[in-house]
Amino acid sequence: MTYELHYWPTIQGRGEFVHLALEAAGAHYLDVARGPESQGQGVQALQRLLHDKAEVHPPFAPPVLKDGAMVVAQTATILQYLAPTLKLVARNEGARIWTQQIQLTIADMVAEAHDTHHPVGVDLSYEDQQPEALRRASGFCRQRIPKFITWFETILARNPAGPRHLVAGRLSYVDLSLFQLVEGLQYAFPRAAAAALAGAPRVVDLHGRVAALPRVAAYLSSDRRLPFNEQGIFRRYPVLDLA
Amino acid sequence: MTYELHYWPTIQGRGEFVHLALEAAGAHYLDVARGPESQGQGVQALQRLLHDKAEVHPPFAPPVLKDGAMVVAQTATILQYLAPTLKLVARNEGARIWTQQIQLTIADMVAEAHDTHHPVGVDLSYEDQQPEALRRASGFCRQRIPKFITWFETILARNPAGPRHLVAGRLSYVDLSLFQLVEGLQYAFPRAAAAALAGAPRVVDLHGRVAALPRVAAYLSSDRRLPFNEQGIFRRYPVLDLA
Repeated sequence: MTYELHYWPTIQGRGEFVHLALEAAGAHYLDVARGPESQGQGVQALQRLLHDKAEVHPPFAPPVLKDGAMVVAQTATILQYLAPTLKLVARNEGARIWTQQIQLTIADMVAEAHDTHHPVGVDLSYEDQQPEALRRASGFCRQRIPKFITWFETILARNPAGPRHLVAGRLSYVDLSLFQLVEGLQYAFPRAAAAALAGAPRVVDLHGRVAALPRVAAYLSSDRRLPFNEQGIFRRYPVLDLA
Repeated sequence: MTYELHYWPTIQGRGEFVHLALEAAGAHYLDVARGPESQGQGVQALQRLLHDKAEVHPPFAPPVLKDGAMVVAQTATILQYLAPTLKLVARNEGARIWTQQIQLTIADMVAEAHDTHHPVGVDLSYEDQQPEALRRASGFCRQRIPKFITWFETILARNPAGPRHLVAGRLSYVDLSLFQLVEGLQYAFPRAAAAALAGAPRVVDLHGRVAALPRVAAYLSSDRRLPFNEQGIFRRYPVLDLA
């Protein structure tokens, strides 16, 4: 069975967390909106899915995963759905709950990173809310980045199975998501991220080991991995990097 | 076994979604931070839990549920953990994934509602960001409330088991959460909520039926239910109610 991932074709965005899980597991999947419209793919296929009046589980927003008749949206829910099959989560229920709790905390930080450049409205451009963005980024860089990164460092340090993974002694989807979060922070807020990561050696180590996983490394150097840009969640506006 | 719910004692906030699930199921639980400090409860007990250096699963933020040795944070994860025991979710995996997807969409809207009064910083007061709040609330009331409410109406209309519940033909935790979301919108944005709900009869009907559930009705009229106020997520600032 080939999974279908439906996401905007020009940005990493939230879809990237799903990409990383699929790639790290070596799963077969189709990145539908980046495929050719002549073969029923492209952005039109994504739009058809979003507006399909026959779909009983209509997605509110991308990313969306299709697995046969199963249609799942919300990044954390997609990961939770995929993880047992992709062997990216522990078997016991307590570990699964903890894994999802970490993922939702990563999602909270992703949303806050997004809001640094869109503090007053998603339907306005960054240029229309630049002064507000400066105020929001100040708190994000100076309070929120350190607070979140310290929490990730703490839970790595307290993992009874050791600090190589966030949950138990094996790779799980939250290790991949934390890698992507660090990547995004380093792109968008290089000075603020460096300051926070200077005190988080276990987070830095995990980030490096994820990047070096053979399948992840192959993905990152392929053209399937889009570069960061200023249309996505993590945008490099140097004026907002308030270390 | 008595559950312990740890949440700020003076606001409904995100803790309210957990309260409603516990109350609707008739579960025994202790609302720890509202208990007497003389009995080891109160805000100090919450603070101890948040800063417990021996906790291997330290919460990033309240609400936190303790169930014996199990410590769970993140509202949606707490609900997911509790729901099978409280019989507030369907048994099959597909329905559980759909339920969690709806809960995360409710959580997204809750976060956006919060950001109407705190668009540029959680560590600043509303009064320090009032002009920005006005801009943010405009988009929330005019675009986001209608978009979210329309989605809830659509998924009720498309539920193969009928429009009385969001998932399948029985009460689940997302019905309770949607009730609370509507309550909050009606408190904070009475005009904008009324405008959106005028086109969403199934949402209005579900809200009314949840309020009339005997255990929920008993809870809502008890002093265990805190009133909305201007320290929580849903705040009544009439100037932000931009219908």
